[in-house]
Amino acid sequence: MKELENRILTDGKVLPGNILKVGNFLNHTLDPDLIMNMGREVARLYADAGVTKVLTVEASGIPFAFAIGAVMHIPVVFAKKHNTSNIDTGVYSACVHSYTHNTDYNIIVGKEHISSDDKVLLADDFLAVGNALNGLIEIVTNAGATVAGCAIAIEKGFQRGGDKLREKGIRVESLALIDSMDSERGIVYRP
Amino acid sequence: MKELENRILTDGKVLPGNILKVGNFLNHTLDPDLIMNMGREVARLYADAGVTKVLTVEASGIPFAFAIGAVMHIPVVFAKKHNTSNIDTGVYSACVHSYTHNTDYNIIVGKEHISSDDKVLLADDFLAVGNALNGLIEIVTNAGATVAGCAIAIEKGFQRGGDKLREKGIRVESLALIDSMDSERGIVYRP
Repeated sequence: MKELENRILTDGKVLPGNILKVGNFLNHTLDPDLIMNMGREVARLYADAGVTKVLTVEASGIPFAFAIGAVMHIPVVFAKKHNTSNIDTGVYSACVHSYTHNTDYNIIVGKEHISSDDKVLLADDFLAVGNALNGLIEIVTNAGATVAGCAIAIEKGFQRGGDKLREKGIRVESLALIDSMDSERGIVYRP
Repeated sequence: MKELENRILTDGKVLPGNILKVGNFLNHTLDPDLIMNMGREVARLYADAGVTKVLTVEASGIPFAFAIGAVMHIPVVFAKKHNTSNIDTGVYSACVHSYTHNTDYNIIVGKEHISSDDKVLLADDFLAVGNALNGLIEIVTNAGATVAGCAIAIEKGFQRGGDKLREKGIRVESLALIDSMDSERGIVYRP
């Protein structure tokens, strides 16, 4: 999506350690006009996919997921992060390893929030190695629901998480797919 | 706002300990059509207030704040929760006491996300004793910016946080203002 790709080039900041800072429009300050347009683009891509629900994980996935739900007029669920292993029986949970912080955490969704009839679109602001997304897939699978696909704002293609999901047959649509980035040579998008 | 008041009556659940569960439309599963209408109502109330930015705190404040920003076409900032006292100098921070969990946490906003020119509308899903909102006011004040007012989805009027802010001269608009609630006698809204 050109509008997002251009915005990353003008306002994003590449830092050492594969870090891309987009806090001035995507995950600290939010530009609602841009994010609503991103929601419209995802709604267009998944128009015929029979999606019944959008699922993301708190906190920075929420605005993008909400925009998708607002355009498609379907409910949005956000999984909650949970630091303890003391998970009650009323929830679906998955353990996620954070590549950035090198820690594990649980994500949980109350069982009443996903049913086996649901066709779930997974949404997140970033896709790198894919750990958070794999946790969401585990939750959808445990609920007996179907994964319609994934909608990602920014995929770091060079970290391979997206391609691994595609190789498994899961549809992954990324609005900006970065093949390489470097603070000196800048950002190269996948054609 | 009648639509929200009615939705709380049909889908909310009052539990002991002043707890109102609205996870099936407001803070776990989100109903984007309802929340966008809530954003429209806040935009109407604050149409002439010169608001330049919406500020909330992660995670459950984000959808409502985002909806306000989407309708008003202004940026939304969410403060991040931070468990450590090790706060760097590039952020504004405030310590918030959680009434629900009886713990303290810090909320932080990067300094570049609020400027002294900003007229900030504070938004949150709930207002009870007002600790989170007071933390946001502290951050806005430290940034040298102005508080335009507060937009709250559900105010628990009987916990007095909203009235204390009003007594200080801060504008507080709550879309549903509950004067009393009880699992047997139900919910009574302030007229």
